[in-house]
Order: sequence, then C-alpha cells, then structure tokens
Amino acid sequence: MSRPSLDFWFDLASNYSYLSVMRIAALAERNGVDVHWRPFLLGPILDALGWEGPPFVVQKEKGAYVWQDMRRQCRKYALPWQQPSEFPRRTVLATRIAVLAADEPWLPDWCRAVMMRNYGDDREVDSPEAVAQMLTTLGLPAQRLIEEAGSEANRLRLRERTQAARDLGIFGAPTFFVGEEMFWGNDRLEDAIEAALGAPQNRDTA
Amino acid sequence: MSRPSLDFWFDLASNYSYLSVMRIAALAERNGVDVHWRPFLLGPILDALGWEGPPFVVQKEKGAYVWQDMRRQCRKYALPWQQPSEFPRRTVLATRIAVLAADEPWLPDWCRAVMMRNYGDDREVDSPEAVAQMLTTLGLPAQRLIEEAGSEANRLRLRERTQAARDLGIFGAPTFFVGEEMFWGNDRLEDAIEAALGAPQNRDTA
Repeated sequence: MSRPSLDFWFDLASNYSYLSVMRIAALAERNGVDVHWRPFLLGPILDALGWEGPPFVVQKEKGAYVWQDMRRQCRKYALPWQQPSEFPRRTVLATRIAVLAADEPWLPDWCRAVMMRNYGDDREVDSPEAVAQMLTTLGLPAQRLIEEAGSEANRLRLRERTQAARDLGIFGAPTFFVGEEMFWGNDRLEDAIEAALGAPQNRDTA
Repeated sequence: MSRPSLDFWFDLASNYSYLSVMRIAALAERNGVDVHWRPFLLGPILDALGWEGPPFVVQKEKGAYVWQDMRRQCRKYALPWQQPSEFPRRTVLATRIAVLAADEPWLPDWCRAVMMRNYGDDREVDSPEAVAQMLTTLGLPAQRLIEEAGSEANRLRLRERTQAARDLGIFGAPTFFVGEEMFWGNDRLEDAIEAALGAPQNRDTA
C-alpha cells in the first residue's frame, strides 16, 4: 500500500490559501501524509462561474468580516498577519514559478516565501524584482527560472493546471482532494488529513 | 462580573445553522457560557445583498459540495443527517414560534425539534400540522402558540429581529457575537466560545 496522500490545490493570491500553505507541511509530516502541491489560478474559474471579481470584494459585507477573521485565524495559528493594502495581489509570475517547480523539493519553500511576503509583510510579490529577490534568498538561479517560467511551454502548463482545477469542480481555494473526495477551505485541512489516513487506497487524481 | 455570554444568530432553514443549533447548548454549558438565542430570517437579508436565491442554490458548484460537506460534518459531530429533498425549506411559522419563545426555557428545544425534523428526517417543518405536532410533543399548548405566533405584534417582532440582524452586518447563518465581535459559521463556534471566556466584559448587543 502506498503512503497516505492528498492533493492540495491553492492560489497564491488567496488569503485562506495563505493559512493552509503555511500549515500543511508540518501537519502532514506529523501525520505521515504526503502532500501533492497544486498551485493554480482561481481568477479564471471565478470568471467562468460568473463572479465579477473576487467574492470577498464583490460581497462587501463578507469582505469586511474576512479581514477580522484572518486576524483572529492568524493569531490562532501563530502566523504573522498584516492586512494587505492591495487585494487580491497579482501573482501570475509567482504562480508560473510554482508550476515550473512542480517536481522540485523547493516548491513548498517558494510558496511560503510568496505568501509570507504578501500576508506577513504586505508587499507585492509579482514584479520580476520581487520574484528574483525571493528566489535568490532560496539560493536559486533567479534569472534562469524567471525566463523558464515565462516560456510558452510553462504558460501552457499553468493554463492546463487551471483547467484541471475547473474539471475537478473546484470553486474556491484552498481545496483538498483525498482520492476524488473534495474538502474546501482551510477549515477542512484537518478533516482532509484524517480522511487521507483513513482512505482505503490513496491514488493521485491529478 | 456577569457570566460569559454570546449571541447566537441563526436561521431555522439554514443547514449550517442546523449544526450549531444542535451543538451549542452542550458546548456552552460545558464552558460556563450563556447563550442568547436569536432566530432570524436570512432570506430578506440575502435579497437585500442582491442574491437571487440562497447562495448554495445560486452557486451550483458550491451547492453540490455543500451536501458532501454536511454529510461528513454530521458524521464528525455524531448528528443524524438526511439530505433534504427540498432546500431551503419554508420555516416562517416555525421561526415566528421561536421569536415568540424569546424568553421561554423551551426555545432551544423548539429549535432542535425543527432542525431535526428537517435535516434528520427530511420532513417539512412549517405547516400548521407539523408545527402543532412538534409543539405538542414538547408538552406545549400548540393551538394557542400558533395563534400568538401569527399575531401582528409577533410578526412585527420577527421583522424587527431580522432588521436588527441586518444592522449588525450579518450576511450568513449561523453568526455569533461576543460583544461586538462577529464570528461567522458553525466552524467558528468553538472560537466564539473561547472569545466569550476571554472577553474583558460580556454585554448584550441585541
């Protein structure tokens, strides 16, 4: 039997994805669960679902609440928090880097760096300068990676990834899959881990 | 110093309110927290927010997920669950009874009876017959209560309650308040209880 595993779909611009990106590695490790990181762009999916912008921005009442909730959630999880002065931030290049790093051991580090800069420091995360700085901090060849990230082959990879998310019925982020079973939202991360441990078989769905 | 307390705003038709209606009394009791039950109608608020129906019905992708989530959540909380064949069910009379019972010790029992019939047994909960049967089961004078519930004074009471919910910025159900601090969703019930225990002072906001 293979090790228990789950698929972790997230958007680097999404605030609730921030919570899961920061929490999932330690939690999964502690439980002996493998995580398949699946960065994607939620924007095109929300467009297709008919949203005229991010739900938290369109629904002003909920939007006001979300920042209160984020402050409390970050306190609960002992995560740094600064309410971003811009939301949602552009993360296309950062996501292309993440997609390029699909099979690289530094993918989680990359995602945490982007998230922490956005939600911990309230700084933009998508300019070539910001991306280069973060990559360099991780000891990676920034210039080469930025070039490869922008290649037609990699852009296509991200579009395919986002289409795969849509085909799975994903409507928000983060979303976890244990086999074909969907768990939506950071609030369900623990449930997803538990389901992975209890699943009769663990197979990739993506 | 008064006992810790929280305000519990819920809609008798709402599936996530079902989870909190069934869980809150025991949880609050165990923690020494008083609960002020505040039934209201979410429908007029969603109308005012521009929704053309319940969000889970309008957003089909999320709607399909919600029933999966409910099944798992009910298993987690050891609550009965039958996916309702009609959603959302009409609960106006049931809610008028709940508003009438604002100061009655049987208010929680009433709400649990309505919720269990809807989400545990998949039965309608708003006909005079159904309401009378549930009231009678609780040993209450059904006919008199149904009459009082439909009085102009009590209808007004429910409209005022729903307006109060809107004034508080409520956009979904269940919603908890500890003082002026809002907690949205059954997933935040434990956080709200904890906040009530930690609040410097506990005062009614409604």
